[in-house]
Amino acid sequence: MDVPAAPPDRLPVVAMVGAGQLARMTHQAAIALGQSLRVLATAASDPAALVCADVHLGAPDDLEALRGLARGADAVTFDHEGVPNELLRALTAEGVVVRPGPDALVHAQDKLVMRRALEGLARMPAYAEVRSPADVDALARRTGWPTVLKAVRGGYDGRGVWLLDGPDPALVAELLAAGTPLMAEQAVSMRRELAVQVARSPHGQAAAWPVVETVQRDGQCVEVLAPAPDLDPTTVAAAQQLALRIADRLDVTGLLAVELFDTDGTAAGLVVNELAMRPHNSGHWTIEGARTSQFEQHLRAVLDYPLGATEPTAPVAVMANVLGAATPVAVPLDERCHHLFGRFPDVKVHLYGKAERPARKVGHVTALGARLEEVRARAALAASWLSTGEWADGWSPYGPDAARTREVFRA
Amino acid sequence: MDVPAAPPDRLPVVAMVGAGQLARMTHQAAIALGQSLRVLATAASDPAALVCADVHLGAPDDLEALRGLARGADAVTFDHEGVPNELLRALTAEGVVVRPGPDALVHAQDKLVMRRALEGLARMPAYAEVRSPADVDALARRTGWPTVLKAVRGGYDGRGVWLLDGPDPALVAELLAAGTPLMAEQAVSMRRELAVQVARSPHGQAAAWPVVETVQRDGQCVEVLAPAPDLDPTTVAAAQQLALRIADRLDVTGLLAVELFDTDGTAAGLVVNELAMRPHNSGHWTIEGARTSQFEQHLRAVLDYPLGATEPTAPVAVMANVLGAATPVAVPLDERCHHLFGRFPDVKVHLYGKAERPARKVGHVTALGARLEEVRARAALAASWLSTGEWADGWSPYGPDAARTREVFRA
Repeated sequence: MDVPAAPPDRLPVVAMVGAGQLARMTHQAAIALGQSLRVLATAASDPAALVCADVHLGAPDDLEALRGLARGADAVTFDHEGVPNELLRALTAEGVVVRPGPDALVHAQDKLVMRRALEGLARMPAYAEVRSPADVDALARRTGWPTVLKAVRGGYDGRGVWLLDGPDPALVAELLAAGTPLMAEQAVSMRRELAVQVARSPHGQAAAWPVVETVQRDGQCVEVLAPAPDLDPTTVAAAQQLALRIADRLDVTGLLAVELFDTDGTAAGLVVNELAMRPHNSGHWTIEGARTSQFEQHLRAVLDYPLGATEPTAPVAVMANVLGAATPVAVPLDERCHHLFGRFPDVKVHLYGKAERPARKVGHVTALGARLEEVRARAALAASWLSTGEWADGWSPYGPDAARTREVFRA
Repeated sequence: MDVPAAPPDRLPVVAMVGAGQLARMTHQAAIALGQSLRVLATAASDPAALVCADVHLGAPDDLEALRGLARGADAVTFDHEGVPNELLRALTAEGVVVRPGPDALVHAQDKLVMRRALEGLARMPAYAEVRSPADVDALARRTGWPTVLKAVRGGYDGRGVWLLDGPDPALVAELLAAGTPLMAEQAVSMRRELAVQVARSPHGQAAAWPVVETVQRDGQCVEVLAPAPDLDPTTVAAAQQLALRIADRLDVTGLLAVELFDTDGTAAGLVVNELAMRPHNSGHWTIEGARTSQFEQHLRAVLDYPLGATEPTAPVAVMANVLGAATPVAVPLDERCHHLFGRFPDVKVHLYGKAERPARKVGHVTALGARLEEVRARAALAASWLSTGEWADGWSPYGPDAARTREVFRA
C-alpha cells in the first residue's frame, strides 16, 4: 500500500478571515496548489466552512480567534473587510504576515481614508466628511442634488448608501446619533460602471485582468461583462494603469478591485467609486474566463509567488449572480439544477451553500462564447431561472405545447 | 448579520470510496455544484482527506465503513477499483445507490470478465486465462513471444503486468501459488496508445470528450495530448462510438475511460486495452481544457443530472504527470512552485499533497495553446522541473551567465 516513508514537502498555509463564498472559491484554488485553505468562520454553516478541512470557528473582531487562525499560517488574508484594523495591527506587531497589511486594508475599510489617499492620483466624485446635516447641504450646494450619503465604513451591496434628492436632516441626524460615520458624495452622472482588478505581490510584481462592465440593479451587482464591450483600448489601458498605480501607492498585497464610473467613454472620464482588497464579485468570471482565476491569483500574491497569466480564455465571458428571489421558490434548487443543466449544458454553475433570502447572493453562473448578446442572454436566463424557478423567456422543457399536453394527460 | 431564516435547499451528497487525488479533484468540482464530497479515507493524510470537510476514516473492504459512508448519501461512487464487489452487492441489496453498480464495476475490477464481456463488441488482443505455466505457452504458440502476463485483478500503473520474452514457468507458478489470478495476452504491436472517455447517466444520456493520446513510460502514463494529434476524424468517431457502446453494454453510470491501442491509424485497428470506471488520469486535461471537467461530469452522471458540454476550450491541451523523482530532490517543492510560476505563468499546476517517492504521481500540470509541439514542450519542462528540481533544457532563472555571475559574487 501507499504508505509514505516521509511526509510530503511542506506547502504554505493561507488563513482567511471569513468563510463566505469568496473563501469557498479560494479553497478550490488552494487545492490545486497543493494547499488547504484555513478559514475563520462564524458558523459551521458558512459557505466555506461547509467544504474546507481546516475550519476555525470565531468572530473576526476577536483577537484571540485571529491569533488562533494565524498560528502556523504563512499569511493571513480576507474574505471581507469587517476586521477591526487595530486587531490587524496587533497581529502584525506580533510578527503575523497580514496581506494586505492593515495600512493598505484601511483604504478598503474606510471610504474617507480612501478618498483622501487617492487625491491627485485618480479622478473622484466631490466628497465631504459629514459631521452634521449641514455638511451634506454644503456639498450639494457645490455639486447639486441628488447627493449620495454613505456610511464611511461597513456598507456593501447598496447597504450603507442613501441617495438624497434634497436635504434630509432627520435621516442624517439619526444615522450620526446611531454612531454611523458618514460622508457625502456628488452623484456622478455616468454611462455605466466598470471594474478593473489587479493583483500585486509583496515584492511588487503586478498583473491586471481585462476591464469589465458591471451591471447593477438596486445598488447590487447582477451581471459582469468581460471584457467591457465597446471600450476604447486607450481607456482600457488607462483603467488598468490606474488600478496598478493605486495598488502601488497603497502598497496592496493580494487582489485589488477598483470600481469605476465610465462618465464619457474616455480615459479622462474614469472616476473611482470604490476599492476592494480581496477576491471580488466582478472577478468571478475569471474562474473559467481567464487563464488564472482571481482566487488562484490572490493566493499566489499573498504568498509572494510569481503571478499567473491573466489572458482571457474566450472572446466573451458573462457572469450573472444568482440572487435569492423575492418570494419562496416552488421548484427545489436541486430540480432547478437539473433543468438548467438540461437546457444549457455549457453554462458553469457555482452555488455557495447559502439559504435563499431576497436579493442574497447564493451563487453565480458563467457563460462563455464569441458573441456578447448571445452569451449574455444565456447567462441571464440561467441565473434568473436558478433564482426564481421561472424561465424569463417562457421556455418549457416540455415544448411549446406543454400546457396543452398537460391538459390532455389530465383529461 | 447574515443569519439565514431557513436552511438552504438540500443539494445531493455524493460519497466516494477512496480519498486519493481523484477524490481530491472531484471535491473541487463538487464545491461549484453547491455540494461537498464525502470521502472514505484510509488515513487523514490521504490527498482528499486533507481538503474535504466530510471525511470518513475506514477501509474500502470493511462493510461497516462502507455502510457508514453511504448513510444519507445520494450516491456512492469510486476513486479506485479496490472495493470487493460482493460488498457493493450487499450495499445495493440494502438500497444504497452505487454508481457504477457492482455488475458494471466488475468489468473494471476483473480484466478477464471484461475481455469476455467485450467479445464481439470490440477488437481485443488474443487472451487466455492462466491456471498453469502451460496456459501462457499455449497462447504464445498462437501469438508469439513476447507475451503479456497480467494480474486479472488489482494491477495499475504498470504494476501487475509482466512482459515475458519466453516461457517463465517459475514466475507464473510463483504468482499462482501466491494466489494472484492471472491471464496472458498477446503483446500488440502498435503505433501509440489512445484513450477515450465518456460519461453515462442512469437514464442513459452519454457524452464523449475528444480522443486523446496517452504517452507511457515504464508502463505508466506520463503525458496526455488532447486531442490525439493526426488522428483521422473517422477513427476519432469510431473510438468515441466504441466507448459509448461499451458504456451502454456494461450499463456504466458515471465515467468510463477506454484505453486503446492504435495499431494502424484506422478505426478497424483500434484495440481495447483496459477500462476504468471513474475519473481517470487520461482526463485530467479536461479541468482547464474542456468546458466540463471529468470530475464535474462524473458527479453529474452519478446524480443523474443532465451532462455538461465536452467541447475543448483550446485547440491543444497537454497534461503531464509530476512523478516522484528517483532520488531526493534538493529544491523544496514550495521553491519549485516559485520558479515554475516565474518561468511559465500560464501553466496550471495541480498538486495532490502526497509525499514524493520514486515514480509516484504527486501532481500534474496542464498547458494550453495553439501549437502542439510548443504546448507539449512547456508541459514537459514544467512537469520534469516539479519532479526533479532540474530544468531539462538547462534554463536558469539567473540567465545564461548564472554560473559565471555566481563566481563573480563569490570572489
